[in-house]
Amino acid sequence: MTEQITIIGVGLIGGSFALALKAAGVTAKFVGYGRNEQNLVRAVERGIIDSYHTELADAVNGSDLVLVAAPVGANDAIFEQLSGAVSANCVITDAGSVKQSVINAARKHLGTLSNFVPAHPIAGTEHSGVEAGFASLYQGKRLIITPIAETSAEATAVVSSLWAQTGAVIETMSPERHDKVFAATSHLPHLLAFSLVETLFRMEQQEELLRYASGGFSDFTRIASSDPVMWKDICLHNSDCILDAVAHLEKGLSELTAAIERKDERAIEHIFRVAKNTRDEKILSKASAE
Amino acid sequence: MTEQITIIGVGLIGGSFALALKAAGVTAKFVGYGRNEQNLVRAVERGIIDSYHTELADAVNGSDLVLVAAPVGANDAIFEQLSGAVSANCVITDAGSVKQSVINAARKHLGTLSNFVPAHPIAGTEHSGVEAGFASLYQGKRLIITPIAETSAEATAVVSSLWAQTGAVIETMSPERHDKVFAATSHLPHLLAFSLVETLFRMEQQEELLRYASGGFSDFTRIASSDPVMWKDICLHNSDCILDAVAHLEKGLSELTAAIERKDERAIEHIFRVAKNTRDEKILSKASAE
Repeated sequence: MTEQITIIGVGLIGGSFALALKAAGVTAKFVGYGRNEQNLVRAVERGIIDSYHTELADAVNGSDLVLVAAPVGANDAIFEQLSGAVSANCVITDAGSVKQSVINAARKHLGTLSNFVPAHPIAGTEHSGVEAGFASLYQGKRLIITPIAETSAEATAVVSSLWAQTGAVIETMSPERHDKVFAATSHLPHLLAFSLVETLFRMEQQEELLRYASGGFSDFTRIASSDPVMWKDICLHNSDCILDAVAHLEKGLSELTAAIERKDERAIEHIFRVAKNTRDEKILSKASAE
Repeated sequence: MTEQITIIGVGLIGGSFALALKAAGVTAKFVGYGRNEQNLVRAVERGIIDSYHTELADAVNGSDLVLVAAPVGANDAIFEQLSGAVSANCVITDAGSVKQSVINAARKHLGTLSNFVPAHPIAGTEHSGVEAGFASLYQGKRLIITPIAETSAEATAVVSSLWAQTGAVIETMSPERHDKVFAATSHLPHLLAFSLVETLFRMEQQEELLRYASGGFSDFTRIASSDPVMWKDICLHNSDCILDAVAHLEKGLSELTAAIERKDERAIEHIFRVAKNTRDEKILSKASAE
């Protein structure tokens, strides 16, 4: 029975987790922790958390479960503080977009890893912060647990059960594979969107360019409105996989531009047709089947 | 008074033009032309056109206005056939995403350019073909006329007036500037979306990658479902501007990856913050102001 849950980082992800569990009838007490007190006050006002502390040790005191939902760059400091502050039976999980680095932080600071369950909810919007959270964010979305050898079955069951109550569908994947897969399918598109908008910003007559950058461009770059700190952290903490994914993209893009330069109609159309078929048949159908 | 309008290429763009004008009460007779007769039969069934011809000269016979809405790669052959087939007073306009090349085709084949009005409706979806057309496609969207010195004011007025009745907002821009602006704001994002999906398709364990490529990735790559032939033509007909835009992006992307390689937190966050601010303040606000 989970009687007290601490949310570390009460933003879109942590806040929506609490709202979803409350909506599902979970009666645990929700305690918030974060560096910005105004944000925590607002989270209490919105009914996301029941109370908060500005000292991490106070916030986790007496909790059965701690969800770490801060930008992944804060993990090292958070796990250092968690060590010794949490009770022996407290389950610790996280919601980070990168898994190997959080496992490293946990391994470095936690005495035992049997109660640590690394996880990643595949949900989010381009909005962030306490105002962005909502109860249905995880409905029908994937929650990926990336188990490590030390994690106990009991701790995994606690985390799975709570996430299932948010409406999420539980899957498992190795941490290594997770970081590769999301480097290609999530981190790379975010980098491209950020880079494309920043590139336009630096081009000549950017005001006029941006004037025509509504419509399709606006949709395409929606994810460039994502939180810069969160994404800077992801880049630093999954840099090898991300650089590898970017290198693949740069190779693909340079083959396309080479085809344009030599006016190779067949090669250009082939690339576009493979992309269209892949998206129409494999991506769109997966998405609508969920 | 426009009594007969010929649509060359009855797909999303040409079909929606006819549907919008009919919805606005324009009583002209709409005649279709295309290479695929089945498509034309379907366009008659859908009430998009009133009749069709499979010979271009027959389709434009007696028309006051011809809209060329085929992939831009067909322009040279179409303008060659239009020359001599249209009546002296017939206004010719087009809806191509690239303007300098269509002007070149018109200059090469039409005896006089006074009745030629190059234009580009900034509207579309990732769908294409006769089934994709709908009457409200142009509502509130921009129609950019890229006038040339020879175009008469009367011809421009005819084209402007018809497009205004589709709900489009008329603007003008030089053809050179048009091709640069849309290389950066439209053609480049399409190339990136195509290239990203094709890159994933070629990566190891693509099936698993594609399985996690729903959600945000699916939104981001929506435009990779666009028509490969149309986009191959755009690449070939606006290659200089497109290659220049890609080079800008590649430079921006390589600065970002260099910052990731040297773990330069400030540089990464700066790029992301510029992108987010630009999108939130300049792109989103423009889009919502329209």
